[in-house]
Amino acid sequence: MSDKVCVVGSVAFDSIETPEGRADDVLGGASTYFSVAASFFAPVNMVGIVGSDFPEQEKDFLASRGINLDGLVEAEGETFRWHGRYHENMNVRDTLDLKLNVFEHFAPELPQSYRDSEFVFLANIQPSLQARVLEQLVGPKFVGADTMDHWIEESRDELLALLANVDLLSINDSEAALLSGTGNMVGAAKRVLEMGPDHLVVKRGEYGALQFSSDDVFAVPAFPLETVIDPTGAGDTFAGGLFGSLAEAGEINKKSLRRAVVYGSVVASFTVERFGMERFKSLTRDDIERRYGAFMALTDFHGD
Amino acid sequence: MSDKVCVVGSVAFDSIETPEGRADDVLGGASTYFSVAASFFAPVNMVGIVGSDFPEQEKDFLASRGINLDGLVEAEGETFRWHGRYHENMNVRDTLDLKLNVFEHFAPELPQSYRDSEFVFLANIQPSLQARVLEQLVGPKFVGADTMDHWIEESRDELLALLANVDLLSINDSEAALLSGTGNMVGAAKRVLEMGPDHLVVKRGEYGALQFSSDDVFAVPAFPLETVIDPTGAGDTFAGGLFGSLAEAGEINKKSLRRAVVYGSVVASFTVERFGMERFKSLTRDDIERRYGAFMALTDFHGD
Repeated sequence: MSDKVCVVGSVAFDSIETPEGRADDVLGGASTYFSVAASFFAPVNMVGIVGSDFPEQEKDFLASRGINLDGLVEAEGETFRWHGRYHENMNVRDTLDLKLNVFEHFAPELPQSYRDSEFVFLANIQPSLQARVLEQLVGPKFVGADTMDHWIEESRDELLALLANVDLLSINDSEAALLSGTGNMVGAAKRVLEMGPDHLVVKRGEYGALQFSSDDVFAVPAFPLETVIDPTGAGDTFAGGLFGSLAEAGEINKKSLRRAVVYGSVVASFTVERFGMERFKSLTRDDIERRYGAFMALTDFHGD
Repeated sequence: MSDKVCVVGSVAFDSIETPEGRADDVLGGASTYFSVAASFFAPVNMVGIVGSDFPEQEKDFLASRGINLDGLVEAEGETFRWHGRYHENMNVRDTLDLKLNVFEHFAPELPQSYRDSEFVFLANIQPSLQARVLEQLVGPKFVGADTMDHWIEESRDELLALLANVDLLSINDSEAALLSGTGNMVGAAKRVLEMGPDHLVVKRGEYGALQFSSDDVFAVPAFPLETVIDPTGAGDTFAGGLFGSLAEAGEINKKSLRRAVVYGSVVASFTVERFGMERFKSLTRDDIERRYGAFMALTDFHGD
């Protein structure tokens, strides 16, 4: 029986424009993307807030993935909405509109049934809220967190206090540079590991990911895709696959971590093939295993 | 007995400024970097042109690496000189000064002893000169080429004519995008392979390399380095390690190609640790094998 994963973060409706087209008001948010990705590996306890406009059919979709929605609070008002547009190369995006709505007063409260979750992921929200969630948990086995440039710059002290209690930080390369003060990722990792986490995972988009631990460095390329429709959610599904795989393994060691980073990469590679969460409506664990095998074939230079 | 590698390209003196310091009038040029890198694996026949200012001690260094200098022509005048400055992140550089000098009238003529070289690399020079070299060879086993944005834009027809006779094209990602018309590397590879080459290697600097063949895709990350002093020559030593390793293997197959791409990455990772060719003055094949092992450890997620 797999360990349980608990995740806290945003739930949103996204309107997304990319060079490949557009999608309006599709289900998004870090907590949602993470939960769906992790659900292929382990039971997921999802925490978030939605407005009274949140449709039953979206809850049905999440429930169909086996995700526990006891911690998905419905508040008076509208759900968080984001409207963004990606540049031609898809590595850069502009936020055209952002309405926090009910998310502005998000004060996560874990249902009693969530409090013994073994694997916890604090997606990108205010560090003081991430800390508040940690306090409500009873001795989690492994805690991960994400953050962003805004908190690194504006809430650095709260973030550093949080990092002292985090086992794995999963951020992108520009965030790692901002947090550490160096753009060299080996140097950045040394400094971040000194801040508390035992592991740093650096997401590099189409270039893959690096995982640094005190005694290990692991690098995996991104899966080369001919069709990239929408990068939204790639980082959150990467973290979801990573934590789902770790919870399924139930233990943290060099092998389980490396496999988890690859599973994260696999799941993220599916995410970007369609708008929003579209790809996850038909994805199966078999699809994931097949692409995991393709990752082996992509990177292996040991055998014949 | 290893097959022989023949390379044609520039020989230069570089003045290099990076955030880590500067080096003035150090030995450089694509033919030079390639030859030194390949010399750790196979006999190298080097083709190039230098001025009457080219010091004996530089020839001695090249000869000490076992490189055949019969094709290194000395002409009246000065050797090619380049002065460049790298930006803070080392991915971008500006050319501050460039004097072609004797290189301007380079018309490569292969010594008789070079003409049966089995492995040939046409480093980045005018495509018509690359073709001229090919014509002088007697049935080479495997031909590689590099090029740059200038030739892709200004000499496209000559370049396409050359590519019909090239087995492997080794270029960076922006060149692949420019040549193919798409920034998606899977799509770019399809189009480049239709132009003639059986293999495309896309160099991505600190992110590693991709190798595309009609029936294979291979990805390798760059070795994460804490110390990056000078990126000059990384791409040329990558190609040198790649072709040296292929010549040592003597045959082209999925396994020898993948190993060669990793050896190229290994050699390039040493290049950037010092200014110019400094690192190669003390480098040994044992150093290379140790880092090849470190690459295995960096990328493996199959074993325990």
